[in-house]
Amino acid sequence: MGIQTYSKGLLIVLSGPSGAGKGTVCSALRQQAPELVYSVSATTRQPREGEVEGINYFFKSKEEFRRMIDEGELLEWAQYVDNYYGTPRRFVEDRLEEGKNVLLEIEVQGARQVKERFPEGVFIFLLPPSMKELRARIQGRGTETEDAVQNRMMAASDELEQVHQYDYVVVNDEVAKACHQIRSIMVAERCRRERLFKENPDWLEGF
Amino acid sequence: MGIQTYSKGLLIVLSGPSGAGKGTVCSALRQQAPELVYSVSATTRQPREGEVEGINYFFKSKEEFRRMIDEGELLEWAQYVDNYYGTPRRFVEDRLEEGKNVLLEIEVQGARQVKERFPEGVFIFLLPPSMKELRARIQGRGTETEDAVQNRMMAASDELEQVHQYDYVVVNDEVAKACHQIRSIMVAERCRRERLFKENPDWLEGF
Repeated sequence: MGIQTYSKGLLIVLSGPSGAGKGTVCSALRQQAPELVYSVSATTRQPREGEVEGINYFFKSKEEFRRMIDEGELLEWAQYVDNYYGTPRRFVEDRLEEGKNVLLEIEVQGARQVKERFPEGVFIFLLPPSMKELRARIQGRGTETEDAVQNRMMAASDELEQVHQYDYVVVNDEVAKACHQIRSIMVAERCRRERLFKENPDWLEGF
Repeated sequence: MGIQTYSKGLLIVLSGPSGAGKGTVCSALRQQAPELVYSVSATTRQPREGEVEGINYFFKSKEEFRRMIDEGELLEWAQYVDNYYGTPRRFVEDRLEEGKNVLLEIEVQGARQVKERFPEGVFIFLLPPSMKELRARIQGRGTETEDAVQNRMMAASDELEQVHQYDYVVVNDEVAKACHQIRSIMVAERCRRERLFKENPDWLEGF
């Protein structure tokens, strides 16, 4: 009999300050790594054009969302700019049990909650290459007033302090490079001795 | 100013029981990752056909080797089947300072010494897919008596116990897969938050 390598899926949490480019990196990963499962969030915000229920988000009313919180159906949730966002727990847990890696792309406050509940997750902090670039990206959206830009920059500064809660730091100066680093992290984590023996302390007995 | 990512090289220590296929995996890595520096060992054993001084090994007399031990010129050394093997320290340290990753392919006893001197190294334990396959590989060399095969199998069993000293475990059931995992580990380790901030505690200040 040969040896069994790590069999459960990894929960990969990709977070970082607003403006780091989490969405862009995730879209690129979707192309490159179709075997990766992308968690679908629940939200109370209005769908934007082209967003599809169950693909981009599960769209919920505020009452429904509060019920999900109360009944422990969310792995994490946060209120952000007057709306709720959260991660349905069951979907993630089922995929991990099937041995699939699941990617959560979430805000910094949500990532903190996931870390409490899933310390065995792999926490990746995505950074823009510089604060100057971050400002350019936030302004580039063209949808924000100067005050709003200022607020987002201050929020980003606070979020940066959270870096010490994370296992890895990926600098998003090139999307392709960031994706390559994230995919490498997933491969490496499945080879971590600590993780292998935590899952199965008698790992070497079948050898 | 943008942020500086990890600037020093990584010392990658590839070890594991005799028969795991360390040499084969290293040869394949040489093809795939020419940017990686391969440490050249010193040894007192006789050159085999085709082996070149300074490329495969630095061939030394026993007196010369003992002088190198006494003067602390070796990062690790071991006696193995009546010969000495060791890693000249200076060569490795200079390459790491230049920012290059250096790969050491060494026996388990040598890896222990490196871990004491370089706890920040990345320690990878290479495993054959099974004990059965290990025996087949040792027998397949065709150069050993049944007693010698038996001795090597027992030595391998002892060496397996050392797995708990390592950061990563790579199962060498396919050389290409093993190489991919090792290369992924190198990319991932340069993104480790702990490593980044250990090298430069003010890492985020230049941000």
